[in-house]
Amino acid sequence: MKTINVAIIGVGVVGTSVIKTLQDNQDIISARTGVKIIPKLGIARNIKNKYVNIPLSTNLDDALENPEIDMIVELVGGVDLPFQIALKALTNKKSFVTANKAMLAYHRYELETQRQGTPIGFEASVCGGIPIIKILRDGLCANHILSIRGIMNGTSNYILTQMSHTNADFEVALKQAQNLGYAEADPTLDINGSDSAHKLLILSSLAYGIHAKVEDIIIEGIEGLIPEDIQFAKEHDYAIKLLGIAKKQDNELDLRVHLCMIPKDSMLAKVDGAMNAISVIGDKVGEGLYYGAGAGGSETASSVISDIMEIARNKTAPMLGYVSNSQSLEQVVMLAPKEKISSRYYVRLKVNDKPGVLSIIANILAIWGISIQSLIQRNANENSYANQHEIQHKKSQQNQNLESVFLLLSTHICCETQIQGALKELYNLQEVLEKPFMIRIEQLT
Amino acid sequence: MKTINVAIIGVGVVGTSVIKTLQDNQDIISARTGVKIIPKLGIARNIKNKYVNIPLSTNLDDALENPEIDMIVELVGGVDLPFQIALKALTNKKSFVTANKAMLAYHRYELETQRQGTPIGFEASVCGGIPIIKILRDGLCANHILSIRGIMNGTSNYILTQMSHTNADFEVALKQAQNLGYAEADPTLDINGSDSAHKLLILSSLAYGIHAKVEDIIIEGIEGLIPEDIQFAKEHDYAIKLLGIAKKQDNELDLRVHLCMIPKDSMLAKVDGAMNAISVIGDKVGEGLYYGAGAGGSETASSVISDIMEIARNKTAPMLGYVSNSQSLEQVVMLAPKEKISSRYYVRLKVNDKPGVLSIIANILAIWGISIQSLIQRNANENSYANQHEIQHKKSQQNQNLESVFLLLSTHICCETQIQGALKELYNLQEVLEKPFMIRIEQLT
Repeated sequence: MKTINVAIIGVGVVGTSVIKTLQDNQDIISARTGVKIIPKLGIARNIKNKYVNIPLSTNLDDALENPEIDMIVELVGGVDLPFQIALKALTNKKSFVTANKAMLAYHRYELETQRQGTPIGFEASVCGGIPIIKILRDGLCANHILSIRGIMNGTSNYILTQMSHTNADFEVALKQAQNLGYAEADPTLDINGSDSAHKLLILSSLAYGIHAKVEDIIIEGIEGLIPEDIQFAKEHDYAIKLLGIAKKQDNELDLRVHLCMIPKDSMLAKVDGAMNAISVIGDKVGEGLYYGAGAGGSETASSVISDIMEIARNKTAPMLGYVSNSQSLEQVVMLAPKEKISSRYYVRLKVNDKPGVLSIIANILAIWGISIQSLIQRNANENSYANQHEIQHKKSQQNQNLESVFLLLSTHICCETQIQGALKELYNLQEVLEKPFMIRIEQLT
Repeated sequence: MKTINVAIIGVGVVGTSVIKTLQDNQDIISARTGVKIIPKLGIARNIKNKYVNIPLSTNLDDALENPEIDMIVELVGGVDLPFQIALKALTNKKSFVTANKAMLAYHRYELETQRQGTPIGFEASVCGGIPIIKILRDGLCANHILSIRGIMNGTSNYILTQMSHTNADFEVALKQAQNLGYAEADPTLDINGSDSAHKLLILSSLAYGIHAKVEDIIIEGIEGLIPEDIQFAKEHDYAIKLLGIAKKQDNELDLRVHLCMIPKDSMLAKVDGAMNAISVIGDKVGEGLYYGAGAGGSETASSVISDIMEIARNKTAPMLGYVSNSQSLEQVVMLAPKEKISSRYYVRLKVNDKPGVLSIIANILAIWGISIQSLIQRNANENSYANQHEIQHKKSQQNQNLESVFLLLSTHICCETQIQGALKELYNLQEVLEKPFMIRIEQLT
């Protein structure tokens, strides 16, 4: 039986699980590939306290320059070092498998150009336990993809679920996520939408062959959300989720990551806790939804090894979904300008509770061509969650002696330019006490 | 650019859609494979009234014996003729793609043996729009699969959904399904569980390398279900679904198709109408759920063409998930004897409403070692759904002058032998007025 020797760079939770799974499940891995896949060497910055039974080294070149090693599995994290590792592996004609979404968000097209036929696998880079890369590339490949909408970050979904189920506020739910190991000590990338954006960019390359960049798309996180928003959503039969969205209209692709209100009876709304799910609509296949673990050691290892096995089987699918350059397509897909994106919107305004305020606000919205669909007023006293956590207090000093209320409203469809313009003008009003908070309403149709 | 000529045998709803999609989406299909795929010829029994713009013939050999044809797509239906077509295609070294679950349920291992490296694709044979074959074979291949549980038949799921949402009885819901085109004029295979069983056998080959046969597994359909059963399920927080189930315990594989009560908050319980979904638990990846259209022309065409494209890309994955014979695995998986299967059970008994009946029934259950978890008594007068539709009336003549009631009960875990034995004995009681009806309760854990 043919043998493939693999070096694992980065022996943390995922790396350890990759090594153990290659050993534990060696029976089926050989039976399903016809190849013996051997975890030959682990590379780690510090080789103490590693619970694996293979040789370890601290020297990258022991893997990258070793002619006995056929394949490099990169599980280091970060952007620059892994990119250097990838380039060196490709230069030395070693297959390369990675779980690194951030590196691919920035460098996937450079790797595609540099690899010259050497296989690259990255199933584990998007939603650890969901084989969404292969689903898009191999399963749905006959379709023009009309949209991708997904819960792509387990940490933020856990926090949103806690806030929704227990009325916890953001800070409390975040602490719970950290205590349970769902959130890093520094959870910034998870919470500000960046991690989801990295994944969305990778999926867009597969579905649309588009070389979109992090800096060109709307990326918003889950900060700023308060229980009053969730209450409003529930009363209007919505759930609130952080979605990565790709939507194709004509030749324009609308890419964005932000909080959404979605119909509470939809499958996506049922995806709770640290789980992930991605809904894809193809022009022929209609809607499919793919649900599974978003992270975790053995879950991610499962995807890493599916790539190793694919390479062992000697498959030759294109790395980013397109064999020929996407330029050769009759219909070239371009990124839609952010301003043209349209949606329904939910807006939370904290305002002075005095006569005439609503009329001023409604007037500004009307000037921007925005019509209100529903409106609720709710008390916003000093004990409200928003105040406890000091969300962007603006003019609270000068308005101290007036009661404040929340105006919670939803709009009919309008453009991003309209809502952003209106919100900016509203924020300038003396009657508006803190920065307006907005969530887009996705009907999922 | 390399060219592949495809002949489509069977130009019905799916065949027409395959031809049209190959033409409509030719841009992305070429970009994603680097190959020009041409629908060259259609074969149909009757070539009148076909809405495709390619040459048609009624002679199979125009495709099978034509050296210009590289690939045969079989969309005929049935078992024997398609199997003969497959054998001839393989003999002539033409790649073979099929959507035919029945033929594969009986002949998949013969095809695997005969093909000698010629590619065979059958993504469309299981749950039309869900790429579950590729998910199992390529995405989850690092895992020992612990269980597969799925809603694999859209017609029966539509009927169950209607019964649940509108309290319709079985006959009415079936008629609705037929009016909407979800059910065939002869819906036998959909309703009696056979269609789901065919799909389950195919998935089991991929997941376990097991050559199980239709006649060796439990196959039950949705007939006999009445609104009282659904009411009981709702009151106990269950939904009723027809599931195909594969569960591995040690070296034994438990394969079966039957109605199940499942927790109403589970993702599977939310799968309504004609949609399909399959939950797979892998030892490393945990649970994943894959949801999409179960049938339909363009949905099935999407999967057929994903196979065509895979072959065009020249992939060499094993046909049934295992390269080497599954005998070479250390742990050979064997089919579990039906009798050893254990579960919780729901039982509906129609009985005479007279003192002492419950005691007699409880006594029989106790003798068989079955303990009751919950029990409800409900009126079963002449206007009940069961009576309207004459479900297995047995001794109604001799008991005419007594009121009858339903006893609806759920049991703790027991074996199939126990429940079947007890039900048989209960049916023999004069007090039991019709054949006992049973549904297994799956906790989905």
